[in-house]
Amino acid sequence: MQLLPGVGPKTAQRLALHLIKRSEKEVQSLAQALIDAKKQVGLCKVCFHLSAEPVCSICSNQNRDRDTICVVADSRDVIALEKTREYKGQYHVLGGVISPMDGIGPEQLHIEALVRRVTKNQVKEVILAINPSVEGETTTLYLGGLLKPFTKVTRIAFGLPMGGDLEYADEVTLARALEGRRELDF
Amino acid sequence: MQLLPGVGPKTAQRLALHLIKRSEKEVQSLAQALIDAKKQVGLCKVCFHLSAEPVCSICSNQNRDRDTICVVADSRDVIALEKTREYKGQYHVLGGVISPMDGIGPEQLHIEALVRRVTKNQVKEVILAINPSVEGETTTLYLGGLLKPFTKVTRIAFGLPMGGDLEYADEVTLARALEGRRELDF
Repeated sequence: MQLLPGVGPKTAQRLALHLIKRSEKEVQSLAQALIDAKKQVGLCKVCFHLSAEPVCSICSNQNRDRDTICVVADSRDVIALEKTREYKGQYHVLGGVISPMDGIGPEQLHIEALVRRVTKNQVKEVILAINPSVEGETTTLYLGGLLKPFTKVTRIAFGLPMGGDLEYADEVTLARALEGRRELDF
Repeated sequence: MQLLPGVGPKTAQRLALHLIKRSEKEVQSLAQALIDAKKQVGLCKVCFHLSAEPVCSICSNQNRDRDTICVVADSRDVIALEKTREYKGQYHVLGGVISPMDGIGPEQLHIEALVRRVTKNQVKEVILAINPSVEGETTTLYLGGLLKPFTKVTRIAFGLPMGGDLEYADEVTLARALEGRRELDF
């Protein structure tokens, strides 16, 4: 049975043979590191991003804008967005997207906590940054309806990726790029 | 020397050997088709898209919206945008992008004709659909400045492609997707 993502039978064998060659002490220290990581890393109480502290470093950073919350499906998305160094607001990690086929409804996600955050802290804007899959769109629309009475709700732009080429873009992306066109501002 | 795009030495040899095996009549008919195509296909007088008629089928189609012109670099982009079946306006093919390194300035492109079209026909919107390369951005900004006194100038959206994944998007695309966020409308 495959346990780790991206580790197939060949990689698993390579890793196993590598570990067997190392000293017992080294293997023990790796095993301990895994246990420690599992013990220490939990979810931030506020935004549900991975964190070793009860409140993560983004939520506790006083220099970040508290008026904006960017809602993502997964902690990986927080890491990707942080790499842009463009966004200075807060995050909220849902822990997945609404997917009735997999038995994931709004109750299984951190949506109640999000609504509480938005209403309690008078958040000025919620940015929905959820992947444009069927489930992602469903989640975006659901959250939009839920949050619109309380705050401004925006979603990230869909269109041509940077360095992309009109000629090689698929029809849906091109249609979205046309639909989402914006006035040129100088 | 390589003459045809996408045809390297191996493909060229395969094509040559294939043609030698065909009858003389067949080869002659292919040669004639090439000459005919070259003779018959020119540029539309209005939009500079490829056309066998003096005015192309898009420009002469009375059912298409005449208030909007979508500006593209190349005829290939017209074909890509037509495949979306979303756009019902006119086009204008520049014939390239501004690229001083290659000696291509605004005079080498069909820009003068575009300005004439916009001012003469009281066009309501010009959509700039030019690839987001350095030259493409330059061309977009140049055209924006040129056309803004006469009409509304928009550009297509840049952001996450459809089916794309936040986690795998590059930083610039993500930053653009965040920057270009739009209010959710129901």
